[in-house]
Amino acid sequence: MGRTSTARERLLDAACGLMLKRGYGTIGVAEICARADVKKGSFYHFFESKQALTIEAINAHWAAQRPDWVATLRGDGPAEDRLERLFLDQAAAQRAAKTEGGAVNGCLFGNLALEMSTQDVVVQARLAAIFDEQIDLVHATLTDAAEQGTIPTPAATRTTARAVLAQLEGMVMFAKLANDPSVLDELWAQTSRLLRS
Amino acid sequence: MGRTSTARERLLDAACGLMLKRGYGTIGVAEICARADVKKGSFYHFFESKQALTIEAINAHWAAQRPDWVATLRGDGPAEDRLERLFLDQAAAQRAAKTEGGAVNGCLFGNLALEMSTQDVVVQARLAAIFDEQIDLVHATLTDAAEQGTIPTPAATRTTARAVLAQLEGMVMFAKLANDPSVLDELWAQTSRLLRS
Repeated sequence: MGRTSTARERLLDAACGLMLKRGYGTIGVAEICARADVKKGSFYHFFESKQALTIEAINAHWAAQRPDWVATLRGDGPAEDRLERLFLDQAAAQRAAKTEGGAVNGCLFGNLALEMSTQDVVVQARLAAIFDEQIDLVHATLTDAAEQGTIPTPAATRTTARAVLAQLEGMVMFAKLANDPSVLDELWAQTSRLLRS
Repeated sequence: MGRTSTARERLLDAACGLMLKRGYGTIGVAEICARADVKKGSFYHFFESKQALTIEAINAHWAAQRPDWVATLRGDGPAEDRLERLFLDQAAAQRAAKTEGGAVNGCLFGNLALEMSTQDVVVQARLAAIFDEQIDLVHATLTDAAEQGTIPTPAATRTTARAVLAQLEGMVMFAKLANDPSVLDELWAQTSRLLRS
């Protein structure tokens, strides 16, 4: 079944790559299959629909990123340094995308959130659940930082955790718009101001 | 020419409404014409292409909003209060969209920025210019606030002005994803933290 499993993975990779660049609406099953080098007839062996593939692509993308988020944010050491590390990693990922693929692609979840939220409740719900997980991880880190005395206790709320992630999504938007990862050079310096009293 | 001028305006309104909900890629000229109640044959009398219409729709949207931004941010009184007013107005606009149309539509410029930046340099350049204008307006307001002594001078930079707008775009994204304008209830309380030292 090695070949089968590879085809499924290639379809997910192809969908993810296409959606990062162009969103959901204009991507067709034929184009995903062509990019994945999978016969169109096989597509529906793996996925019921383009929506089903999209959910799986979102899940695969988060499954690949989540361990890094957990390892970085829930690791040892000063909690504020862990959050800084996450933000530096996010900026580095956008820099790498530009160097390797020529474009700052932004955040798959943010891109799809703006395009799909008002159109597809299944995709919307999955994206909302992923952002909730991210907010929870950041919130737990802020709680650690407050306990360690490096941020004021009123900054260790879920609301502030969401604002921290909104700062990341907003700045990544501007970096994508400019196709310039240097927009993110001051990302952490600015974001950390949200954690002052 | 009253009828002609109305048709052009209706096409712009229709495009704007459709793009706020569903982005650019899946919207067709036929659908825009149907919503505007304009014959498809007339479309190309007014616009060379869907791209040309999109640029005009973006321009019309900003032409409608810009006077409010200028009046609010460049008016009299404490500069920080002016910025708070702008943010409260933005949250109110998303609340009104939900009440009147059933959906938090988000920001047209932000929605298109994530969908179009890597695909259409003309749209990308226009959106970048509008965000630059917004950043300049916020930057001038921060400079006033620093002169009035209500924010520290190091917070009155263009980089912080961009971070302030990134906070708005990121939080509006989360409000759109949740289709819940109450996500923006703490928008200003969080954003104003960016203006502390």
